[in-house]
Amino acid sequence: MKNFLIIGHKAVTETFSLNDLPGAAGRMDILCRCVNAALFLSHDIRRDVCVFLVLKGEPSPPKIIRFDGSAVRYLSPDERSAASLIKKALEKKAQDFWTESTAGVSIRKGDLDDIIKELDMKVTYLREDGEDIRVNKFDPQSDRLFVLGDHLGLTEDEEKIILGCEHEMISVGPLSLHADHCIMLLHNEMDRGKHI
Amino acid sequence: MKNFLIIGHKAVTETFSLNDLPGAAGRMDILCRCVNAALFLSHDIRRDVCVFLVLKGEPSPPKIIRFDGSAVRYLSPDERSAASLIKKALEKKAQDFWTESTAGVSIRKGDLDDIIKELDMKVTYLREDGEDIRVNKFDPQSDRLFVLGDHLGLTEDEEKIILGCEHEMISVGPLSLHADHCIMLLHNEMDRGKHI
Repeated sequence: MKNFLIIGHKAVTETFSLNDLPGAAGRMDILCRCVNAALFLSHDIRRDVCVFLVLKGEPSPPKIIRFDGSAVRYLSPDERSAASLIKKALEKKAQDFWTESTAGVSIRKGDLDDIIKELDMKVTYLREDGEDIRVNKFDPQSDRLFVLGDHLGLTEDEEKIILGCEHEMISVGPLSLHADHCIMLLHNEMDRGKHI
Repeated sequence: MKNFLIIGHKAVTETFSLNDLPGAAGRMDILCRCVNAALFLSHDIRRDVCVFLVLKGEPSPPKIIRFDGSAVRYLSPDERSAASLIKKALEKKAQDFWTESTAGVSIRKGDLDDIIKELDMKVTYLREDGEDIRVNKFDPQSDRLFVLGDHLGLTEDEEKIILGCEHEMISVGPLSLHADHCIMLLHNEMDRGKHI
């Protein structure tokens, strides 16, 4: 299972308008594009992928929304489609356990460290000064949790959590890219490893 | 200059609602994501990139909208932002020459062959059975026109136009991917070539 966790530091934790994802919804557009990049093939869904969105914006952070590729339905590639499933999840009461809002989409209270504990696997942290993915060869069959920041990167406290567990730091290329673009490059590297 | 041309076979050629890009606007969401993938770095725009969107949907196809990375303004990474600039372009009268609608965004009547003639450079056609980009090494400094299809691929007639000029066929990996995902992988390959 490939797991992608993206932290949305401003992403709101209550229902929002689909017509202003970058503004009023706190850069929810970034998280929607990450869902797309993580889950979509040309005419298919990547069934071996889970996406965890950590929402840390007002009014009641932190909450986590999970998209499970093996079960997700009603998801199209456009941002608004992912946003509408996130919105439906936020309409549910978030508790200390997962509550399914639509097929394959669930919500709970929680933060980065809760997912790290829950998954209990090596963390691969995307950072510009990490080792290049073409040098640090992936084992595409191994279970992984990739952690990516939004436009604000990760806070010091979030980094401390990662440094406190089994982890590696990698980068996807020479330039600084959006999180969804990084996810595509990670997938491609693993796709190539699997299909050689 | 890197040029990306994406053909939207159903993309409407009149003004449309920003609230239904995949449906009423004829999969305009695909073209918007391609604009994002082609032009955005983490906190910057790729100034050496032009994007050509060929719109072939009703009521008055074909039209071409150009996003020029060296001049574009008012563009954010979300789909709706690119869509709103496309919409503004479609509100202009499309003629046989370029008309600027907003800074760095222009429209004209025309089709794939018009851009191939106008740019007069080698065409790199993305196709699943093309040669792998890691085998066919790019010269990242050379001028190129990359041609990608939407969810419908290219028609026979469109392929004939490409086969009739200097071209190469390449692929970005073992799986069939969305056009915007392919653009990211092309950029990464060229970024790596340039920064080694």
